[in-house]
Amino acid sequence: MSEEFDVIVIGAGPAGENVIARAARGGLSTAIVEESLVGGECGYFACIPSKILLRPVELAAETGRTPGLGPGMIDTGAALARRDEVVSNLDDTRAAAALKEVPAQLFRGRGRLAGPKRVEVTLADGGTARLTARHAVVLATGSRPVIPPIPGMAEANPWTSHEATAVRTVPRRLAVLGGGVVACELAQAMHGLGAVETTVLVRGQALLERLEPFAGQFVADSFVTSGIDVRTGARVTRVERRVRNGEVTIHLAGGPPLVADELLVATGRVPASGGLGLDTVGLTPGSPVQVDDSMRAVGVDGGWLYAVSDINGRALLTHMGKYQGRLCGDVIVARAKGEPDDLPAMRDVTTASGVPQVIFTDPQIGAVGLTEAAAREKGYRVRVVEYDMAAVSGAYVREPSYRGRAKAVVDEDRKVLLGVTFVGPGVAELVHSATIAVTAQVPLERLWHAVPSFPTVSEVWLRLLETYGL
Amino acid sequence: MSEEFDVIVIGAGPAGENVIARAARGGLSTAIVEESLVGGECGYFACIPSKILLRPVELAAETGRTPGLGPGMIDTGAALARRDEVVSNLDDTRAAAALKEVPAQLFRGRGRLAGPKRVEVTLADGGTARLTARHAVVLATGSRPVIPPIPGMAEANPWTSHEATAVRTVPRRLAVLGGGVVACELAQAMHGLGAVETTVLVRGQALLERLEPFAGQFVADSFVTSGIDVRTGARVTRVERRVRNGEVTIHLAGGPPLVADELLVATGRVPASGGLGLDTVGLTPGSPVQVDDSMRAVGVDGGWLYAVSDINGRALLTHMGKYQGRLCGDVIVARAKGEPDDLPAMRDVTTASGVPQVIFTDPQIGAVGLTEAAAREKGYRVRVVEYDMAAVSGAYVREPSYRGRAKAVVDEDRKVLLGVTFVGPGVAELVHSATIAVTAQVPLERLWHAVPSFPTVSEVWLRLLETYGL
Repeated sequence: MSEEFDVIVIGAGPAGENVIARAARGGLSTAIVEESLVGGECGYFACIPSKILLRPVELAAETGRTPGLGPGMIDTGAALARRDEVVSNLDDTRAAAALKEVPAQLFRGRGRLAGPKRVEVTLADGGTARLTARHAVVLATGSRPVIPPIPGMAEANPWTSHEATAVRTVPRRLAVLGGGVVACELAQAMHGLGAVETTVLVRGQALLERLEPFAGQFVADSFVTSGIDVRTGARVTRVERRVRNGEVTIHLAGGPPLVADELLVATGRVPASGGLGLDTVGLTPGSPVQVDDSMRAVGVDGGWLYAVSDINGRALLTHMGKYQGRLCGDVIVARAKGEPDDLPAMRDVTTASGVPQVIFTDPQIGAVGLTEAAAREKGYRVRVVEYDMAAVSGAYVREPSYRGRAKAVVDEDRKVLLGVTFVGPGVAELVHSATIAVTAQVPLERLWHAVPSFPTVSEVWLRLLETYGL
Repeated sequence: MSEEFDVIVIGAGPAGENVIARAARGGLSTAIVEESLVGGECGYFACIPSKILLRPVELAAETGRTPGLGPGMIDTGAALARRDEVVSNLDDTRAAAALKEVPAQLFRGRGRLAGPKRVEVTLADGGTARLTARHAVVLATGSRPVIPPIPGMAEANPWTSHEATAVRTVPRRLAVLGGGVVACELAQAMHGLGAVETTVLVRGQALLERLEPFAGQFVADSFVTSGIDVRTGARVTRVERRVRNGEVTIHLAGGPPLVADELLVATGRVPASGGLGLDTVGLTPGSPVQVDDSMRAVGVDGGWLYAVSDINGRALLTHMGKYQGRLCGDVIVARAKGEPDDLPAMRDVTTASGVPQVIFTDPQIGAVGLTEAAAREKGYRVRVVEYDMAAVSGAYVREPSYRGRAKAVVDEDRKVLLGVTFVGPGVAELVHSATIAVTAQVPLERLWHAVPSFPTVSEVWLRLLETYGL
């Protein structure tokens, strides 16, 4: 006997939660399946705890650079206790209760497709629930970290972001493999909380290679200044860990091995699309689920399957997953009711314009839209302006030794911004101005009248536009 | 014998500097007259030093609210030394040298109009320079603080913002008269730097009365929590100071007198338009110089007189004065060359839409455009949405006890924002997003696609739009 719902979502992370919230608002009945914690990785093991751990580190560094204050002493125990409180001690009772309010019926267990519009859930108690969707099934299972196939690596039981954000004892010697966002944020957090010997091993030649090149350079400089060892061009050939939780020896091509108390692997994530029964509907398990701009899966008869967030491979960012979830929920409601399904809010316009992102390192990085390289590759007629943020009064007021840089990529044909990158202390909240400008394609000559308040760091906007020639 | 220039500017503050920079860029010859420091009040005695003094106070409060850190101990001497460094120890040699680079000829002395296109300068050495403008004279003398006509007040020689930002010894007992931006910022700075008994005397019923009412309430609550005494409805009847620099007795209607070591008067500013020779061109000394949207003075034959910044009474804010200076310089160049003088960059559009402002109190306030009250008064069909910023993940990550609020005023006919106000830690850089949205009149349905990065405080944007019904 199968239970019927209008919409069934597999994965109760932030994106899935947004789908059912919008679907329920539209009057549809909803079920949501979760095999782990309601709320998803983000709240328990990713964005939230990592930022909680970074916040005292960032502030302590800022006070150290502020005349009249001194470098802050961090109480690691108190920081970890705050982390525990924020992740609700990994108890999802409240998050699950919130689902009832939506309302949505929660199935705790592992969900998978079992043919068109059908979902089978292996429940926590060992039983099986068979669900049928009247209108839509939405995959929102996110992504999982990749452990590179290096000899000895799997056996060494390395940390991923999951274990690092849940840290109970900060290792004194930490090796970090990777140079992306997770690697950079967690290296800095752990170093600030007591990992005095932190080494970042990057396969490529720079940190944060998907961003404008200067962004990774600023972070690398900051790492080196604070005592984090950054090694580019590093090739790990073998990993050895003889005792569980004992020290790890990381063998490197062309140099002596590195010994650490813990190894954090942050070399990327892949869509969590395995074991989901994709083959029962003609899709390939393990690959991203390709979707159109309404989040509907491409190549599935009947158009009843959707995929939001990391699993569709569009943008591995919580806020973009939530955005996709909202529009997906709205689209499903419209289609279920036979109403227009192409309103402005019902299509992802950000994949074309480029998504926003904040990296909470010190200095912070905020970027949106296309990098110069990406814009040129797409064939835009591009002009670029850059500005040294230390020359902005508001930055100098904030810190005497402010270090930062801004870059704007202009579409010369339309005189709008294709992309903006800010690097520097305090830019996390500045980037939304660029997100609006880029996403809404506000012409430069209108941006000229948006006067930044004095003396804020935001005045870099004026300097960029002046440098452009306005 | 009179010297001739294309453009003569009286007042070498930030606005005047912007006029000559743009005029010189357009190939015009320029002279600038300054009787005090090149760079103006802002850099030496206003925005800049006040923010420098506030910065350690703000940061120390933030660390005190951050688990893993403790309340910061402020070294007042170091904070004052940094202030001295930033205000260049009141030496304007470098600022004056920068004028040469523009190029502009600097006349040090008191300038005044002496009939159409004529400026007379009483030079520092006692001589007189007689200047003639071929195209334009621009008044940019700013504003001066008002000392209310209370018996004994003038004789008590109270502080204005000028003396407070130049403080050498922080008074233990400080009375602040006024409830506006200057009063709030300097009360908090002085209190944090050692004025343990700080009392704010407000004539009205609230702080910051020109903003949305909750803004002043948040600041008042913060003041009370930190130990600043806020007295609304205060009427000062008489002031007594028997000994120069000795204690001041402030007599209040209906209560005991207040005794303080220093009295800061911050009850407003008026245009510095006296003694400028306005009568020689048919205008009224002491009043604001009325201008049109190109900054040209209204009611002067020949259209050669302009006024930018505080003296025109449009917006007493440095960034708006600079904005006016830029467009004024561009307009003068266009008119001098007989080129189109009505390009989009050549008109002030912000006076109609409402200007942005940041107040660097703790919590910070960022506001742009119209308040709800102002919008209703102008006859807009208004809908208002508010949101408790403590409920935003990014705010909670920033501080466990985050307190703040956001409000958006929507024009229901055009579905654009008329005004936005944010109150809370860290909103100083957030407000530029609203400045772009309000100034460029970005439709709500396009703002919906500008996704705030997670987990930033900026996510309040999403919550406001959701609350609106998107």
